[in-house]
Amino acid sequence: MGRLFVVTTFGESHGVALGAVVDGCPAGIPLIVSDVQRQLDRRRPGQSALTTSRAEKDKVEILSGVEKGVTLGTPICLMVRNMDQRPGDYSTFSRIPRPSHADLTWKLKYGIIASSGGGRASARETVARVAAGVVAQKFLGVGHGVEIVAWVSAVGKVEMADIADNPPCRDEVDSTDARCPDRTCAKKMASEIMKARKAGDSVGGVITCVCSGVPPGWGEPLFEKMQAMLGAAMLSIPAVKGFEIGAGFKSARMRGSQNNDLFVRKSGRIGTVSNRSGGIQGGISNGEPIVMRIAFKPPATIARPQKTVDCDGNPVILEASGRHDPCVVPRAVPVVEAMAAIALADAALMAE
Amino acid sequence: MGRLFVVTTFGESHGVALGAVVDGCPAGIPLIVSDVQRQLDRRRPGQSALTTSRAEKDKVEILSGVEKGVTLGTPICLMVRNMDQRPGDYSTFSRIPRPSHADLTWKLKYGIIASSGGGRASARETVARVAAGVVAQKFLGVGHGVEIVAWVSAVGKVEMADIADNPPCRDEVDSTDARCPDRTCAKKMASEIMKARKAGDSVGGVITCVCSGVPPGWGEPLFEKMQAMLGAAMLSIPAVKGFEIGAGFKSARMRGSQNNDLFVRKSGRIGTVSNRSGGIQGGISNGEPIVMRIAFKPPATIARPQKTVDCDGNPVILEASGRHDPCVVPRAVPVVEAMAAIALADAALMAE
Amino acid sequence: MGRLFVVTTFGESHGVALGAVVDGCPAGIPLIVSDVQRQLDRRRPGQSALTTSRAEKDKVEILSGVEKGVTLGTPICLMVRNMDQRPGDYSTFSRIPRPSHADLTWKLKYGIIASSGGGRASARETVARVAAGVVAQKFLGVGHGVEIVAWVSAVGKVEMADIADNPPCRDEVDSTDARCPDRTCAKKMASEIMKARKAGDSVGGVITCVCSGVPPGWGEPLFEKMQAMLGAAMLSIPAVKGFEIGAGFKSARMRGSQNNDLFVRKSGRIGTVSNRSGGIQGGISNGEPIVMRIAFKPPATIARPQKTVDCDGNPVILEASGRHDPCVVPRAVPVVEAMAAIALADAALMAE
Amino acid sequence: MGRLFVVTTFGESHGVALGAVVDGCPAGIPLIVSDVQRQLDRRRPGQSALTTSRAEKDKVEILSGVEKGVTLGTPICLMVRNMDQRPGDYSTFSRIPRPSHADLTWKLKYGIIASSGGGRASARETVARVAAGVVAQKFLGVGHGVEIVAWVSAVGKVEMADIADNPPCRDEVDSTDARCPDRTCAKKMASEIMKARKAGDSVGGVITCVCSGVPPGWGEPLFEKMQAMLGAAMLSIPAVKGFEIGAGFKSARMRGSQNNDLFVRKSGRIGTVSNRSGGIQGGISNGEPIVMRIAFKPPATIARPQKTVDCDGNPVILEASGRHDPCVVPRAVPVVEAMAAIALADAALMAE
Repeated sequence: MGRLFVVTTFGESHGVALGAVVDGCPAGIPLIVSDVQRQLDRRRPGQSALTTSRAEKDKVEILSGVEKGVTLGTPICLMVRNMDQRPGDYSTFSRIPRPSHADLTWKLKYGIIASSGGGRASARETVARVAAGVVAQKFLGVGHGVEIVAWVSAVGKVEMADIADNPPCRDEVDSTDARCPDRTCAKKMASEIMKARKAGDSVGGVITCVCSGVPPGWGEPLFEKMQAMLGAAMLSIPAVKGFEIGAGFKSARMRGSQNNDLFVRKSGRIGTVSNRSGGIQGGISNGEPIVMRIAFKPPATIARPQKTVDCDGNPVILEASGRHDPCVVPRAVPVVEAMAAIALADAALMAE
Repeated sequence: MGRLFVVTTFGESHGVALGAVVDGCPAGIPLIVSDVQRQLDRRRPGQSALTTSRAEKDKVEILSGVEKGVTLGTPICLMVRNMDQRPGDYSTFSRIPRPSHADLTWKLKYGIIASSGGGRASARETVARVAAGVVAQKFLGVGHGVEIVAWVSAVGKVEMADIADNPPCRDEVDSTDARCPDRTCAKKMASEIMKARKAGDSVGGVITCVCSGVPPGWGEPLFEKMQAMLGAAMLSIPAVKGFEIGAGFKSARMRGSQNNDLFVRKSGRIGTVSNRSGGIQGGISNGEPIVMRIAFKPPATIARPQKTVDCDGNPVILEASGRHDPCVVPRAVPVVEAMAAIALADAALMAE
Repeated sequence: MGRLFVVTTFGESHGVALGAVVDGCPAGIPLIVSDVQRQLDRRRPGQSALTTSRAEKDKVEILSGVEKGVTLGTPICLMVRNMDQRPGDYSTFSRIPRPSHADLTWKLKYGIIASSGGGRASARETVARVAAGVVAQKFLGVGHGVEIVAWVSAVGKVEMADIADNPPCRDEVDSTDARCPDRTCAKKMASEIMKARKAGDSVGGVITCVCSGVPPGWGEPLFEKMQAMLGAAMLSIPAVKGFEIGAGFKSARMRGSQNNDLFVRKSGRIGTVSNRSGGIQGGISNGEPIVMRIAFKPPATIARPQKTVDCDGNPVILEASGRHDPCVVPRAVPVVEAMAAIALADAALMAE
Repeated sequence: MGRLFVVTTFGESHGVALGAVVDGCPAGIPLIVSDVQRQLDRRRPGQSALTTSRAEKDKVEILSGVEKGVTLGTPICLMVRNMDQRPGDYSTFSRIPRPSHADLTWKLKYGIIASSGGGRASARETVARVAAGVVAQKFLGVGHGVEIVAWVSAVGKVEMADIADNPPCRDEVDSTDARCPDRTCAKKMASEIMKARKAGDSVGGVITCVCSGVPPGWGEPLFEKMQAMLGAAMLSIPAVKGFEIGAGFKSARMRGSQNNDLFVRKSGRIGTVSNRSGGIQGGISNGEPIVMRIAFKPPATIARPQKTVDCDGNPVILEASGRHDPCVVPRAVPVVEAMAAIALADAALMAE
């Protein structure tokens, strides 16, 4: 992924290790293990009552590209060894593909439902993305003053008011288990998640992400528009089904006179009064904060019985056991931040 | 754009010609000028009362890659000469950037608001995409039996019922000026557009696109998930602000037990009862139709006076003249079909 | 070809047109038709007694990316229409593949020996490269002060003394039909070529290319070393069989104490006393001129009878008719310059 | 490196670890640690009297992409931890750049001569290439019956007769320390190397590489010709200064009637009598063995005093200490095999 800031990930859920190689990060950026560890800890399972009980410690090691706490300009390899492997949990799914899960398509494409090749692989693979994303965030922060923050803005039908114009800091986001900075709303979300868990069910949600400090001029005018790169990054996260930039689908319901962001003189630059463009015009950043909303479907693996068929087409009732998240959005917050950072870092290098 | 089915476009709105080079299309695919011309005619301005009065004939010429009506496997160059150039129409915008338009970001990035470099350029550039998309559609149709159809499913607040499970054919779509196959709805949409035009305003809309016949196994499991490639393709179309695959943002409001697509035996394969996944699971096509919704904002150029600032930050009232679309979605239908086809053609070659 | 300075070519020898799209050239570079035409005229057939009698005028048209003689930063499309098409000349070769020619491999790969798809296609395709190379040379010249000159340094067994340390200008190169700046040597080369033609035969040769003014720091340290990019560019020219940077194969015969380029203070920078490195150390330009030698085999199509087999494996005697070059190196000089420029332009953008 | 068979390497000479991620290798290819270890042992230092005394064990670990000895189709990460790190050895070179070494260009490009970022880094980085090359060789061997063997065909002025038509096996190559299958010649080479070492000097050499069993049809007709991809791969190896395919520079001295490879019926296919094309015609493999010659310069780091200047341009006499190879070609044999395999594996996937 990426043209100049290139991220390659590796690793299976039940293999030896997962990791990422980041190629293209400039020399001289401060980077230490604890920078990476902090975001991994926000993603790791078992961190609160709202997440799966699988307890991976996910300790990261920096194998290359960094010397004395500073990047060298060479490829940076970040590795996390797997600890809590229980391949046995997934044996059922090689016969009965889980509805709305990758089990069947993987089998149709590769001929196998490998416990390590598929299954939970996809979601666990985000460990590598979060690690790589920290490198991108350090580069963007140190080199360009960009700050990225994401939070849970909806869980099921519980929706939080839009605060993209005045985004919280990460500590505020982390102050609730639901990673929603509005405490009242966060309680309702937590309750929604716990209800779903008790019902053996799962629930979807929405994450809002704001990138502040992006200078004007990032993004390419044609196929690599800034929103196309960000959209592709987000839509490559497991369970994402929708993406909006700025006013998104709401724009489609508006008149131009309502939707247009009028220009106004701001300190030292021309800014906009409103930000329905979400910080991007014509595919290129305009200096206003970049605002995105990302829709996550409810996790496919549920404990409730499902009337489906096995690989041979025979009707079966599937009741999944194992340890699964009833809702992914609280843990997906650092993943969204990582993907935003990787897409922006690439755009930053392209614009230089 | 693309890894194996690679499309390069060229041309400015007011330059000599626009076009596309398609590299990677296999040999032996039937392709004649009228195939391309048909889709260009669906995109061209001046085709109905709902579009701009700029009347480009947009005659396409095939310069290479085709002999005796069949592709050779070599790069295919498709060219459309510009006829109706009036660069003068855009001189104002080099001083006063249009709100929510690319004028300012282009100037910030490249230092110039060239009448031919920026301005309407971006939207006119879709001529090249439509032409390239026809090559992709021929390859997908002949080689794989894939059919792609898009239609207008919303204009402003007028929304059509969801018919993705039973999509219309292109003739049905074209039977109304609004390119909405529901005639009652189409009338309301046309009225909505005419009202906006009379008010010197513009209006947004939504296009739904269904790709039938996509075999299981297209799309890559990590960064190049099928929905990520389709999302990037759609978000690279000018004015697109949102993208959904399958149930999209609705999924975020659902429980897993409501959202999951249960498997069922279909003729010769395992299919799903519902299609909230939109034909993609785990980033890979599952054999069901691929269903997308794409949100277009209202065109930024409106005749109504806008209180904004010029390039120096001085307050001005901008009243745009010139010939502009009050709503882009009717003409954007073939553009959406083209981008879907280009992304799918690349995935098809990757999967082989 | 290229990561940031991306060149796409199109066109078949006997099709409608050939051309190139150059994507990534910065805005503001002066470029007019005659710049391109001059190099095309140096490449075109029929320019002297030493070349084929096929007389293409090869008039170039700039379709996009340039306004008022200056690049816009958008893709530049350059097109040359074919005039002198005689597909009939090549009909024999669809049955009897020419030895050491692409006829057979093309047929094995694509299933057809198309008169327009294969055959002379490959060599004529260099029209597009020369055109694209002019854009690269203008960018390198205006933006970076880089000058590129190539000349014929050997034809068959006639070899010219090494003058890479003091390269000629293009006018000196063009002062002889053989494009060899040493007039005595040039006469011998011309005689060698005429002898081969009279014998119904062909002859190989070597081109030396020097790029002066390349600043230190171009080229990437690992897979995209400057010499790897230049080597790939040259080895993609039809008929090229060998590539050397600096002392090349001679280095393999030397001791380190003979081969090393000792450093010395030069005006304002650290230079080297000798230039056996050919301007590149560790894959990165060092500020000395980049020096390459490129070996071309004799053209495969000869009039002398050849004892070979047809596509079915039956023994035949092949005697080719038609108009063919007895030696490609005089006309290949601008092609070598173009490929050097394209590779360097990409490295320049990567280094910025 | 690569479009479909993508190799990313990481690691510095004096960092924690080196390695490679191979993305694109199909599932189902047998791969075990000892496969990789065997080639690493052929590359490792300290293996014979002809190499440096730095004794890295270079034990490889497979971190991902392989389960039960078979590839999964997911990215394969191979890692080698560094053991024998002595950064102190290189401190001098941060002040006095070694002639014909990357020290100065690295400093000019990145601003630092990091002991771990530059210096010996480049040569040690080939550990990762050798490891990745084994994956490519297994894929080519199992999937396509391709066999790759390289040997030392020249050291300084000692040249071995051409045996490309009848290449040795790897055991024969390894039967001498010089990795030259001709024992008489190998003795002379060993003596040449020992003489250079005693003189505090170094010496260059040539490696010949033959790839047998490559089916017709690999390679792309334009910029990604098979020889261009192989040439770029070889020229990206540290110290390589020249590359020939087939008869190479000798072709330039020949007439077409001498150089052409006449076709002949071979068992079940059309082959060629001679192989001056080196297995490639028109950029596409023709079914004959692919034959290459690669020129390596003498190592730049020598113990003999060199009259040069330091980073400030002040004259100094540089006498390098430390442990260095007097000649790289014996150890470079598996590196050449690896690069050939990686380029061919990519071409194989492109051709499918």
